[in-house]
Amino acid sequence: MTRIFLWFALIFLMSKCTSDNTNKQKLDGRPDYVLVIHGGAGTLSRQTMTAEREMRYRAALDSALQVGEGILRAGGTALDAVTETVAWLEDCPLFNAGRGAVFTHEGRNELDASIMEGRTQRAGAVGAVTIVKNPIRLARAVMEKSPHVFLVGSGAERFAIENGLDTVSPSWFFTQERWEALQKMLQEDDKVGSASASSAAYQFGTVGAVALDRQGNLAAATSTGGMTNKRWNRIGDSPIIGAGTYASNDACAVSCTGHGEYFIRYAVAHDVWARMVYGGASLQEAAYEVIMKKLAEKGGRGGLIAVDKRGNIAMPFNSEGMYRGYARPGERKTAIFAGE
Amino acid sequence: MTRIFLWFALIFLMSKCTSDNTNKQKLDGRPDYVLVIHGGAGTLSRQTMTAEREMRYRAALDSALQVGEGILRAGGTALDAVTETVAWLEDCPLFNAGRGAVFTHEGRNELDASIMEGRTQRAGAVGAVTIVKNPIRLARAVMEKSPHVFLVGSGAERFAIENGLDTVSPSWFFTQERWEALQKMLQEDDKVGSASASSAAYQFGTVGAVALDRQGNLAAATSTGGMTNKRWNRIGDSPIIGAGTYASNDACAVSCTGHGEYFIRYAVAHDVWARMVYGGASLQEAAYEVIMKKLAEKGGRGGLIAVDKRGNIAMPFNSEGMYRGYARPGERKTAIFAGE
Repeated sequence: MTRIFLWFALIFLMSKCTSDNTNKQKLDGRPDYVLVIHGGAGTLSRQTMTAEREMRYRAALDSALQVGEGILRAGGTALDAVTETVAWLEDCPLFNAGRGAVFTHEGRNELDASIMEGRTQRAGAVGAVTIVKNPIRLARAVMEKSPHVFLVGSGAERFAIENGLDTVSPSWFFTQERWEALQKMLQEDDKVGSASASSAAYQFGTVGAVALDRQGNLAAATSTGGMTNKRWNRIGDSPIIGAGTYASNDACAVSCTGHGEYFIRYAVAHDVWARMVYGGASLQEAAYEVIMKKLAEKGGRGGLIAVDKRGNIAMPFNSEGMYRGYARPGERKTAIFAGE
Repeated sequence: MTRIFLWFALIFLMSKCTSDNTNKQKLDGRPDYVLVIHGGAGTLSRQTMTAEREMRYRAALDSALQVGEGILRAGGTALDAVTETVAWLEDCPLFNAGRGAVFTHEGRNELDASIMEGRTQRAGAVGAVTIVKNPIRLARAVMEKSPHVFLVGSGAERFAIENGLDTVSPSWFFTQERWEALQKMLQEDDKVGSASASSAAYQFGTVGAVALDRQGNLAAATSTGGMTNKRWNRIGDSPIIGAGTYASNDACAVSCTGHGEYFIRYAVAHDVWARMVYGGASLQEAAYEVIMKKLAEKGGRGGLIAVDKRGNIAMPFNSEGMYRGYARPGERKTAIFAGE
């Protein structure tokens, strides 16, 4: 009897030691820093993209990664890394955010952005702003310098001016390519005889970054010009905390891109967090289930980037491609198409 | 040996039958309809409220319940019930939504609202509108007549006009009591020398309704004037799907009221849903954990109303009181203070 007891005790202790070791290994295995970025998801296939265009996008993604990686490698915060990385992507005319944003039905650029800090779960967001050079910096100012989370329109712009953020003429955001995309869509509307008919021809585009810093803190940031030909001051998921952006140190940081209306209705960023915290899913499982199953079944196209507190990365998308990349010590990668 | 096997088989089948019966009983026990409403949470105590004022609020809550109950009893949809109930509360000057909304720093009324249908998970929301008589009807029009979920400001107002919704002069929303509340707060600002200093003196107020109809469909709706003295086109949680409002037939419908910034950061309405779906919590447990523990610990004051697919009700709040009430076949109740 005693011998049986001793055997059980031995097996129990052995299993406990093994699992403790596994945990320790995971903790020790956490990379010094992780940065993941996206530049939007959509109909990106090798067939429709020239080699020259592909190279330009890869170079831009790599440059954006270097901005954030420099901050993280030097011991900077995840919050600073996602802010500066997204600001760089906003300034780059290749992506639908800041300069290079798509045009509304009325021919304007209306910008949305949000940011969230995993340690404190503070958040800031702005919607439908037209004169703020870097909406992500404004979102951060809302988080840090106002008692509010979410400001929109001219009120958000007044707040930007009062807080000394860079403002520009609306023409600063103009790019010929986006203007032509609007004209093409307006012509299609005329043919069909309805503005909302173009809803089937959505063009997605967003930029975003998530990061884990040396202190183990997470942060997420997202910025966009929304969808070409959008009307009535439409707000997508990008400035909605819980939909386009979420970060909490207890699990993960998430930034989304895609057909915003679906991402709002399914609270996608918060859903990834909830599946990990309440459902015990890994980051990979949670992100995959939401994007490749739940959203795909409902017809919601897009993707997301995420990093968890252990430094694991997920970048699922159910569209043809997603501009994306990541950096961690000794490794920096960019990708556009599926299967890369 | 055979006898032991037979005993096991018998016990297994008995347990299976019992659990099947339990489920059946629960299904059969679902009330024909359920309607729950709130009129805002805040510093409501018996000491600070006159009997006359208390009676007016109770009568208003009861009238609002009758509006939605009439629809549900006649076999109408949960979506219609929450729309009409919230529209009634918007028209009632006692509550901070529609007529009777609080004033912004600039002396305006800026209204937010959202609605969500549990069966389809379609949703509609509007923010910072100033001339739409019933923001909840506009939110529903956005859901049903636009390809978008969320419209704000003058764009949302253009959409309202294009779709024939009732518009009014901004003065329609004026009430003397709310105006005086703003003046008092502005004087306090002057004393302290800072506008944001009044952030400590938040006045919460929102109206909302959740319902379960005869067909087993859920819906949720929320509407508000936001917080007195708010600035820069601040948007609270009320029009944020996942924060102030959420509904999904697989679990529950939720409408929140309180310090909106906290409700956004913790995606409160979606969090209740997620705790039920991923964590296996009951509606009571999920609602209680979020409001009485998570939010209370973080300093986020407010409450929520919720109904689950079985017809269970939750109405937790961590403030002194919450205007609230519910109706189901043979029972209609209103309450204001804690412990009622």
